Amino acid sequence: MKRNSNKPIKLTEVCLRDGSHVVRHQFTEEQVRAVVRGLEDAGMHYIEVAHGDGLGGSTLQYGRSLVDEMKLIEAAVEESKNSKIAVLLIPGIGTVHELKQAREIGAQLVRVATHVTEANVSAQHISMARELGMEALGFLMMAHSAPVEKLVEQAKLMESYGAEAVYVTDSAGALLPNQVRERIKALRQSLDIEIGFHAHNNLSVAVANTLVAIEEGATRIDGSLRCLGAGAGNTQTEVLVPVLQRMGMDVGVDSYKLMDLAEEVIAPILPKAQEIGRGSIVMGYAGVYSSFLLHAERAGQRFGIDSRDILVELGKRKAVGGQEDMILDVAAELAKQKA
Amino acid sequence: MKRNSNKPIKLTEVCLRDGSHVVRHQFTEEQVRAVVRGLEDAGMHYIEVAHGDGLGGSTLQYGRSLVDEMKLIEAAVEESKNSKIAVLLIPGIGTVHELKQAREIGAQLVRVATHVTEANVSAQHISMARELGMEALGFLMMAHSAPVEKLVEQAKLMESYGAEAVYVTDSAGALLPNQVRERIKALRQSLDIEIGFHAHNNLSVAVANTLVAIEEGATRIDGSLRCLGAGAGNTQTEVLVPVLQRMGMDVGVDSYKLMDLAEEVIAPILPKAQEIGRGSIVMGYAGVYSSFLLHAERAGQRFGIDSRDILVELGKRKAVGGQEDMILDVAAELAKQKA
Repeated sequence: MKRNSNKPIKLTEVCLRDGSHVVRHQFTEEQVRAVVRGLEDAGMHYIEVAHGDGLGGSTLQYGRSLVDEMKLIEAAVEESKNSKIAVLLIPGIGTVHELKQAREIGAQLVRVATHVTEANVSAQHISMARELGMEALGFLMMAHSAPVEKLVEQAKLMESYGAEAVYVTDSAGALLPNQVRERIKALRQSLDIEIGFHAHNNLSVAVANTLVAIEEGATRIDGSLRCLGAGAGNTQTEVLVPVLQRMGMDVGVDSYKLMDLAEEVIAPILPKAQEIGRGSIVMGYAGVYSSFLLHAERAGQRFGIDSRDILVELGKRKAVGGQEDMILDVAAELAKQKA
Repeated sequence: MKRNSNKPIKLTEVCLRDGSHVVRHQFTEEQVRAVVRGLEDAGMHYIEVAHGDGLGGSTLQYGRSLVDEMKLIEAAVEESKNSKIAVLLIPGIGTVHELKQAREIGAQLVRVATHVTEANVSAQHISMARELGMEALGFLMMAHSAPVEKLVEQAKLMESYGAEAVYVTDSAGALLPNQVRERIKALRQSLDIEIGFHAHNNLSVAVANTLVAIEEGATRIDGSLRCLGAGAGNTQTEVLVPVLQRMGMDVGVDSYKLMDLAEEVIAPILPKAQEIGRGSIVMGYAGVYSSFLLHAERAGQRFGIDSRDILVELGKRKAVGGQEDMILDVAAELAKQKA
C-alpha cells in the first residue's frame, strides 16, 4: 500500500470514551486504570477518556457517569507515561470550564466535535485549547451526511480556527470504502493540516475504510479494542495494528499486547459481545443516529409500517439529533403512501 | 462500483455448512428447517448444507454430526422451492458414494474442495457431478498460501475437469483487499468460467474483500448469517446484501428478511457471539489452520516462547493440515534462536 502522506500514523484508542456508551457510562476507576496501563505498555499514542458524549456529558439527558470523568482522566494520566491522554468536547454539552479542568489534571489533546455542517461552533474551544497549550483537533461528526464540498468547507473553517488536524467522523458507520476515499482525498487536496479518520463498524467495513483513509493520507486514526464503542463499535484496534504490520507499516504499537489486553481486560468489561446486529446494520444503512431506533420502532408499530423504512427516509432527509419529532411525520407520510 | 462482469451475482448461504464447525456439528433438523424456510422466503439463491468438512465428514476425526447430514439435506430440500440446495465435498473425506446419495435426495450443486495446490484430486468428483446433472464448482482452499500464478494454474485444471466456476477460498481469513483484487483479476483474465469468492472475517475485512472480488468480476459469492462460520465466520450475509443495495446492486434477496432471520433464528443458535477474538486474529495474521492453535499454545508453553511466533513461522513455511508435527520442530528452533 502506497501512502499519500509521509507523516507517521498516530493512533488514538477510544474505548474509554466511545465505549462509555456501551457500558452506559458505568466505567470504574479500576477499569480505566487497567486499560490505560495495558495501552501504555503496548505503546499506544493517545488514549481518549471522557463521558461518551464528551466532557460534561454526565447529565440526565445523556446518561450519568458512575465516576466523575475528571477522576477517570486523572487516573488515566497517573497510569500513563508515554501515552498521551485525550478528551472529547462537544460545544454545548461541554464548556471551556471543563476543558480547563481537564487540562489542569493532565489531558494533553482535545478533539472538538461538531455536526459536519456546524464547524463554526468549534472556534472558541479550539483557540482556547491552543492557548492552554493542548493539541486541538476538529472532529466533524456524521460526515457521511454532507456533500464532499461541504465537508471540505467545514474542515477549512476548523483549520482557520487553529485545529492541528480535522477528522472525518463516520458516526453512523454509514460510509463505504469508495466514499471514504473521496472524502479523505478531497481534504488532503485542500488542507495543510493532518487529516483524521474515525470509523464505526455498522456495515462491517471499519477496518477496510481505515486502510483506505490511511492510503489517501489520513494520519490520525481511531480504534477501539474489541470494538468497544457505540453502535457496532469502531475499527478494532488489535486487528488494525497487525493488518498494518502485514502491509509493511509498523506504527510502533505492540500488536500481541493489544490482543492480550482486548481478550483479558476489555472482553470482560463488555456487557455483551459486539456483534453486528439488526439495529447497527439499519443505522449504518440508513445513516441515522442510534437514538432514532427506538422512536422509529414505536412509530412503525403505531402506523403499521416497517421501522426500517422510516429510518431510511429519515436518513434521506438528513435528520439530525434533536429532530426526533420528525419521525412521526415521516411515519404518517409513509403509511399514507402505502395505503 | 463498476463490475468487471455482466453476469448476475449468485449468493450461497453457508451457515448450515461452515457454521457446522461452530456448533460442533450439532445442528438439529428443526434448526435446519427453520433456517432454510427463512432463506427461501428471503429469496436466497443457494443454501449449502453438509457437515463442516463436507459430505462424509461425520467421523471421530472431524467430529460426529448429531443428525445424519443426508437427513438434514433432505429436510432442506423439502423446505426450499426456489432456493437450491448445495453440498461441499472434499475428496478423501467425502466420496462419490455420498455425492450420489446427496444428488438422489435433491442436492443440485456441489463445490468440490481441495487445497489450493491440489486441484488434481478434484477431477473425478467434478466430472461425476456433471454426469449426475449437478452444477459442479471448484473450491480452492487456503488460496492465500499459493502465489497467484499457481492459483491460476490450479483453477485452470478445475476448469478443464468441467467445473462451471472456481472459488478463491480464503480459509484462514488471511487475505487483504489488495490480495483479493490481484487474485480475482488474474483468474478473470485466464478463465472462461465464473469466479467465486469465499471469505473469512478473521482480519475484519470479509465484507470489504467481497466487494473487491465483485468489482473484479467474481459472481459466485458466499456469506453466512451472523458470521455463523468457522474462525471469525464469513462475510456477514445480512450486511453484504444491504451494502450491495446501497451501491446500486440489487441481487434479488430481501435484506430485511435476512436481518430478521439473523436476529431471530440464527443468533439463538450460536453458542457464543462471533467476535473477532485473539485466536481468530492470529489465524488470519499468520495464515494457518485453526487446528494449529492449540498445538502451538502447548508447544509455546513447553519451549517458553509466544505461541503466536510459532504460528507466524508455520504460516511462512506454508504448513498445511496434517503437518501438526512440524509445530514442535518450529518451536524448538525459535527457542534456540532466542536463547
